[in-house]
Amino acid sequence: MRLKEIAEKIGARLIGDGNIEIKGVSTLEEAGPGEIAPYYRKRFMELALSSKASALLVGKGLELEGRNLIVAENPRVALVEIINLLYSWKKLRGISPKSSVSSSARISPNVFIGNFVFIGENVEIGEGTEIHSGVKIYENVKIGKNCKIYSNVVIREDTLIGNNVILHPGVVIGADGFGFEQGKKIPQVGKVVLGDNVEIGANTCVDRAALGTTLIEDDVKIDNLCQIGHGVKIGKGTLIAGMSAIGGSTKIGKGVVIGGMVGIRDNIEIGDGVMIAAKTGVTKSVPPGKIISGYPHTDINIWRKAVVLLYRLARKGEGEGKDKEKG
Amino acid sequence: MRLKEIAEKIGARLIGDGNIEIKGVSTLEEAGPGEIAPYYRKRFMELALSSKASALLVGKGLELEGRNLIVAENPRVALVEIINLLYSWKKLRGISPKSSVSSSARISPNVFIGNFVFIGENVEIGEGTEIHSGVKIYENVKIGKNCKIYSNVVIREDTLIGNNVILHPGVVIGADGFGFEQGKKIPQVGKVVLGDNVEIGANTCVDRAALGTTLIEDDVKIDNLCQIGHGVKIGKGTLIAGMSAIGGSTKIGKGVVIGGMVGIRDNIEIGDGVMIAAKTGVTKSVPPGKIISGYPHTDINIWRKAVVLLYRLARKGEGEGKDKEKG
Amino acid sequence: MRLKEIAEKIGARLIGDGNIEIKGVSTLEEAGPGEIAPYYRKRFMELALSSKASALLVGKGLELEGRNLIVAENPRVALVEIINLLYSWKKLRGISPKSSVSSSARISPNVFIGNFVFIGENVEIGEGTEIHSGVKIYENVKIGKNCKIYSNVVIREDTLIGNNVILHPGVVIGADGFGFEQGKKIPQVGKVVLGDNVEIGANTCVDRAALGTTLIEDDVKIDNLCQIGHGVKIGKGTLIAGMSAIGGSTKIGKGVVIGGMVGIRDNIEIGDGVMIAAKTGVTKSVPPGKIISGYPHTDINIWRKAVVLLYRLARKGEGEGKDKEKG
Repeated sequence: MRLKEIAEKIGARLIGDGNIEIKGVSTLEEAGPGEIAPYYRKRFMELALSSKASALLVGKGLELEGRNLIVAENPRVALVEIINLLYSWKKLRGISPKSSVSSSARISPNVFIGNFVFIGENVEIGEGTEIHSGVKIYENVKIGKNCKIYSNVVIREDTLIGNNVILHPGVVIGADGFGFEQGKKIPQVGKVVLGDNVEIGANTCVDRAALGTTLIEDDVKIDNLCQIGHGVKIGKGTLIAGMSAIGGSTKIGKGVVIGGMVGIRDNIEIGDGVMIAAKTGVTKSVPPGKIISGYPHTDINIWRKAVVLLYRLARKGEGEGKDKEKG
Repeated sequence: MRLKEIAEKIGARLIGDGNIEIKGVSTLEEAGPGEIAPYYRKRFMELALSSKASALLVGKGLELEGRNLIVAENPRVALVEIINLLYSWKKLRGISPKSSVSSSARISPNVFIGNFVFIGENVEIGEGTEIHSGVKIYENVKIGKNCKIYSNVVIREDTLIGNNVILHPGVVIGADGFGFEQGKKIPQVGKVVLGDNVEIGANTCVDRAALGTTLIEDDVKIDNLCQIGHGVKIGKGTLIAGMSAIGGSTKIGKGVVIGGMVGIRDNIEIGDGVMIAAKTGVTKSVPPGKIISGYPHTDINIWRKAVVLLYRLARKGEGEGKDKEKG
Repeated sequence: MRLKEIAEKIGARLIGDGNIEIKGVSTLEEAGPGEIAPYYRKRFMELALSSKASALLVGKGLELEGRNLIVAENPRVALVEIINLLYSWKKLRGISPKSSVSSSARISPNVFIGNFVFIGENVEIGEGTEIHSGVKIYENVKIGKNCKIYSNVVIREDTLIGNNVILHPGVVIGADGFGFEQGKKIPQVGKVVLGDNVEIGANTCVDRAALGTTLIEDDVKIDNLCQIGHGVKIGKGTLIAGMSAIGGSTKIGKGVVIGGMVGIRDNIEIGDGVMIAAKTGVTKSVPPGKIISGYPHTDINIWRKAVVLLYRLARKGEGEGKDKEKG
């Protein structure tokens, strides 16, 4: 596609030679001829200057001279649009004879079921959904339309999944929660419900509730290797970065942003719009809108001051040496 | 089942209408007609009052007026009994023709082997054990009776597994430990042994020993996404919450309780009955019975005082502002 | 093999009876007759004295009297040599009829492809590589020679893998990175490249780049349950212990050593030879050669002093009690 066509289609300004052919998108460092690369921040100017990309995608104020440019109001949004113009993903369709689909399963038209997939009794799969090779779906699971279930995902019985859900490889939905009473297993008779547009990263686990429902609302995005405990509820649009864990029955509000390696204890509530810095350990309920860090968690500014203070004291102590310790 | 039958069978007191039919158990919030919900603590009284459950399971002192109640000495134990009365799990049996079982494997009667399961040479599977779809078992593995091996578990060669063991989806047993000498791999020629009644959570990994045995004794329960290093020994009845990691050759005593996201270094010993708070980093051996927290770990009370003190200093510093930093 | 043969073949000194037969290697505690056990450090002398091993492998200065010994310059290197003498691993070869290999795939001679393996369009597999049962390989993946891909690994499209690479069970290579713009998915159109001799632990995830390449250079060893974000670059020979996570687009130098449960934020650079203690949270770029710990990270000595100081203050506070808090 010519650069000028791209500019037109996404409604952005073109600077330079609009007739060059663009075949793909890459980074400033890795892009070569025929590729466009995004240049978002001044601190990458050196990379942008030395980039071998045929064109750059920039925001206002970053127009480099002598380069072919697409200048967009919001270059991050424009990037998504450009990728969608230049790349296509073939829609997989058809049911592999090397799969095992129960006769009681209801499979909509235009579904893809890959090799070595197992689909249990009374499972429902909505139109346009792809179930990739090696996925195992236990009985009574319902999956909506246009979902992508990548290879080797396991979905335990009674799970309900909305539309446009993406489960990356190795995800486990509906495994038993961790519940014991006096050393004996508490049978986990609840289930998992995932809303629409939920995306769950590779090897992440979402446990079924002991009783009732583990609920992940629409538009929640969870990164790789996260642990969502039994009976957790996560509100619409919340984002959870990699390797975070949420203890059983905790409620997370809407639009919460959770950094990587965060641990949130069981049976508490996190209000809407809370932001939780990476590696925080959340030990109590948090009111809406707070920004927190540390373990136990506190206001992020208090935490920052605390570590600055502590490291300063340690550095001072270093100057004064061991005499003081003896004294 | 009628409420009075439930009360009789578990030896609990009935208050209210014993003739109502109970079909299932759910939470106070989610329960509806025909369901019983546990109400364990006063702080959930509001939820209990507004619950649509047909009956409540309570401990003494929580008897709400006007509700159908089962009053139990220990309502948590009673819950397990009620679940076992109301729910049944069909026992899976038979060997799928879509599995691949080596001719030298010894499969006991009443075993279930699902689709796309691979069972290697000389594997032994005990009576009543279920091997779900997609499990891969390498050679010379022995699995005891009445185990449940969920979908897509991988068990490497020479692993020994006791009776009544549960491995949740995606568990990996017996992968090579992380051992290198001058950049070269140390071949991992040891194995893994799991005792009876061990339960291991989804996507958790238990590495084979470099030499000798990685040993998990009877009644150990490990949550999802944990990492058990090569040559680790874990004593009877120990509990390990999600996302914890134990370094190579470390010995954990009996009845230890390990919170979530705990890291324990290699080559140390944790005594019997130790309790380790979530997110602790254990850097040295710990005598029996201690309760620890922090990184590096310390007595939990010292740790609590330390963070209170630190955050208090930080808050004070906030009042005094930046002048002091310049001064 | 006789003990004297072992000593000869690895060029080490023999003390004691060279005619005894050695069949295997185990630990001091677990070794029995016919086995040799390594005894590396004086602090294990008691174990060495009581060991039932037929022979010990020791370094200079650890020669116990009355035992059959192999005394090596570097006993850890000698251990690897002895294991390689005593153990053999059968090379798996052949393509299972229960696999599904695309007709456009190019499979070299002497490859093993196990049961229930899926190999997509245009995949290339190099000579001597083993693809174990249940592995799923998406289209356009290239895998070099003599690799071992263990069961239930998933490799997404366009991934390039060098020679002698080991991927342990449940590894996911090339899943989408975690990228959203205003709640919309940023399609991840980059790829993953793994160099030669890379080893990746069970259930670890390496995400594909949003744009360009996630690059893991030769000789990098990554432990279980790690998360490597989209667009990360990891330099030659770097070691990463279990449950560590690296945020998107971060560059890790050569020969870096990363402890367990370390989190490294996105878009920073870690210099060559940096050492990062377990549980560190790295929040900014780190110059070459530094040794760091803490969260936010700092020089390891400052961090050590800081925690000593803090715990000392807390202990003092304990003596003085709560009066002070009121005062």
